Amino acid sequence: MNYRDRLDIIADVLNVARQNPRKTQIMYGANLSYKVLQKYLAEVIDASLVSFDCARQFYTLTVKGERFLRTYEEYSKVNKVFEKHLNLVQAKRSKLEGLCAGNCH
Amino acid sequence: MNYRDRLDIIADVLNVARQNPRKTQIMYGANLSYKVLQKYLAEVIDASLVSFDCARQFYTLTVKGERFLRTYEEYSKVNKVFEKHLNLVQAKRSKLEGLCAGNCH
Repeated sequence: MNYRDRLDIIADVLNVARQNPRKTQIMYGANLSYKVLQKYLAEVIDASLVSFDCARQFYTLTVKGERFLRTYEEYSKVNKVFEKHLNLVQAKRSKLEGLCAGNCH
Repeated sequence: MNYRDRLDIIADVLNVARQNPRKTQIMYGANLSYKVLQKYLAEVIDASLVSFDCARQFYTLTVKGERFLRTYEEYSKVNKVFEKHLNLVQAKRSKLEGLCAGNCH
């Protein structure tokens, strides 16, 4: 995948959170700038996908976070099949477009 | 299908053309207004998908037109699978969106 959308980034953050990381470990593990990390950390904590252990200063994946990752895995699978079919549909369409192009084309 | 795009309409015109119809028969068979029919007839004749028998005043599907219809059938099949997967992907995405919505939502 070249371009990560919001859900992909959240999944990356949660995957790193499985190892009870500190903030900088999430930043490097999920390959995010500090500014972007701050935004996503606030979001995943607000959504109770990740919790912060104040005493030991690390982040933990919650049960809800685990559920998100399971759903994300299912989503990735159907999305791959979807993209394969999108390519097939586009190939058939361009074949049809070619067939109904005028003779002067 | 509720909305027909250009390729769907061409396929409808060609399907009617299989029966060597006159112009009005294509108009009713493909469910088109006279004005729209004129546009599509010009297009399919220009692309050699349909030919016009001047002596007997009817239209005929060409070999290239048959090829278009076969390709269109294949396209319809992959498009159906594609749409099913599109629905699946959207359902999974909205489940994920729900999971990462903040607690105040």
